[in-house]
Amino acid sequence: MKRVVLAAYARGNPKPGDFRIEQVALPEAGEGEILLKTLYIAVDPLLRFSVDETVLTGAGRMELGMPMVGPVVAEVVASNHPAYAPADVVEARTGWQEYAALAPDRSDYRGPPRKLDPALAPVSTALGALGGPGQTAYEGIVNVGRVKAGETVVISAAAGAVGSIAGQIVKVLGGRAVGIAGGAAKCAALLDLGFDAVADYKAPDFAAQLQTAMPEGADVYLDNVGGDVTMTVLPLLKRGARMPMCGFIAYYGVGMEGPGPDRLPGFYRLIMNKGLEIRGFAGMLAGRKGLEDIAGWMKAGRIRFPESIVEGIEAVPAAFSSVFSGHDHVGKLLVRVGAPAGPGA
Amino acid sequence: MKRVVLAAYARGNPKPGDFRIEQVALPEAGEGEILLKTLYIAVDPLLRFSVDETVLTGAGRMELGMPMVGPVVAEVVASNHPAYAPADVVEARTGWQEYAALAPDRSDYRGPPRKLDPALAPVSTALGALGGPGQTAYEGIVNVGRVKAGETVVISAAAGAVGSIAGQIVKVLGGRAVGIAGGAAKCAALLDLGFDAVADYKAPDFAAQLQTAMPEGADVYLDNVGGDVTMTVLPLLKRGARMPMCGFIAYYGVGMEGPGPDRLPGFYRLIMNKGLEIRGFAGMLAGRKGLEDIAGWMKAGRIRFPESIVEGIEAVPAAFSSVFSGHDHVGKLLVRVGAPAGPGA
Repeated sequence: MKRVVLAAYARGNPKPGDFRIEQVALPEAGEGEILLKTLYIAVDPLLRFSVDETVLTGAGRMELGMPMVGPVVAEVVASNHPAYAPADVVEARTGWQEYAALAPDRSDYRGPPRKLDPALAPVSTALGALGGPGQTAYEGIVNVGRVKAGETVVISAAAGAVGSIAGQIVKVLGGRAVGIAGGAAKCAALLDLGFDAVADYKAPDFAAQLQTAMPEGADVYLDNVGGDVTMTVLPLLKRGARMPMCGFIAYYGVGMEGPGPDRLPGFYRLIMNKGLEIRGFAGMLAGRKGLEDIAGWMKAGRIRFPESIVEGIEAVPAAFSSVFSGHDHVGKLLVRVGAPAGPGA
Repeated sequence: MKRVVLAAYARGNPKPGDFRIEQVALPEAGEGEILLKTLYIAVDPLLRFSVDETVLTGAGRMELGMPMVGPVVAEVVASNHPAYAPADVVEARTGWQEYAALAPDRSDYRGPPRKLDPALAPVSTALGALGGPGQTAYEGIVNVGRVKAGETVVISAAAGAVGSIAGQIVKVLGGRAVGIAGGAAKCAALLDLGFDAVADYKAPDFAAQLQTAMPEGADVYLDNVGGDVTMTVLPLLKRGARMPMCGFIAYYGVGMEGPGPDRLPGFYRLIMNKGLEIRGFAGMLAGRKGLEDIAGWMKAGRIRFPESIVEGIEAVPAAFSSVFSGHDHVGKLLVRVGAPAGPGA
């Protein structure tokens, strides 16, 4: 089987050459273990921290030469555990490899592999609308953002997995959704998803577009980005606006201090002048309650979940790298690694 | 009479030479006006914004050659207004001058001069515990910080007017108060006021002192400062800590961008990793309810309010400048400008 291992720690944004494809022997399911065949790999932007020598997060840094760890959807192909049977489909964190053996009873804090119901939704959505990104969008809009009907919500990285769901949740709640994305194609896709207005951060008149999109400002800013985009958004927020913060992709490539002039004084001024409420949160800590609501809204046709799928484990390094360079995909970027043997998926 | 006018906009921290003392004719109370004799001037750090060419706040910039506007306690010496009588003592925003005539019915958004009750507390406290700083401390600890019994609260600029009251409110609420101040004398004064522990930000082992002062971290950080102090505090906060933000004196001398490397990426990381809740707020918007509680606590002997008083309007420029250079005063820094003619103060 093939797997993707870390060849070099990333400097700045990860490059395909930071990874290496290896051929290794197929693992076997030992006592209490299950053997999983990977169907989909999510090239999650948060994995950026695992490949950085300077990380300060608790997520832990990868060792060079080890396969990348991250969320996947996989099929059980052999089981020595009573709770799992061949053809079951699960969400797990086995990472960037075609097969993996693991012991569900010795899983990390995220819990054992989550069994999926293919009748509920396509299993790939377990990595998107019905997985971590969906939880993050729900937590940000419903619990941290506390969005009410009639409010305007502006969302950065709106064409991404979190942003595209978040904007649709805003619409379900009766709010007005303004999406920020890079390029005309992504902006058009957001309008197609039901966003009320968009602004293209790659356009020279981004600030003017944003002002036109939300002439009275915004009550909530769901930020996934930081950097130039956020410094353009903040002056347009209403007094007392809430700012749920679930990521900062503009800074994933730098440590505690970035290369430019110090923008923290300006950030402080804007927080004070606007009386902003900012809260950092992690969707994976939010529990599964939000996913039930999202599943219901998807069934009712109120939320659609776009996916961009590329094929083959060899495509993973380039797909991961593209996440940080403003790629053209809309929704969750997935790599399809294998076809299911059973009927489950 | 004498007044202090702005001679030059501040570059970096204000210097005494940025101001000039002028001798002008005594004003008279016109129709509907009252004539006020200034008793105390508060050298409020927020006035920093009025003397800066680069300000972005709504407070408005001073014109060169004009007398500085800011909070004072004054005595009514003549009145053509039915609500005010000679010997009344008021809090007003007439600024850095020995006398001023004003029309209460044409006051700005802060409302007409507030009549003080000398029987309740010394009138100078209207510029401190029973004025803007008291409101800010109350809003930060009670409403924004939502401090509960048993929680640990760390306070920057703790020897200042806001901080010294805030720490005592924490004690009233049953919390643990940790104060950050510059120098051994200020730290000793905080312990004397009832703070449970202190850390000296001017000491080379500041970070270690802070860790010793709050070995389990803190639930709330009342920030008035920003800069190095805050970047030392944040890694020690508990997960989900609240951070009411009422000022950022470390940045008052710079515009939107500071001179050093960009610390905004590190700030984002800490917000996310700690799941922090940050909220900017202005005490003056908080209403007068908090002041009733503080007055009651002062009467009950549960809150003391230290004041540092210097004499004479000529002392105002140096006193104001000292606020930004880590002076040795504890509590509210006031300039006594005149003695009351009546018995009111």
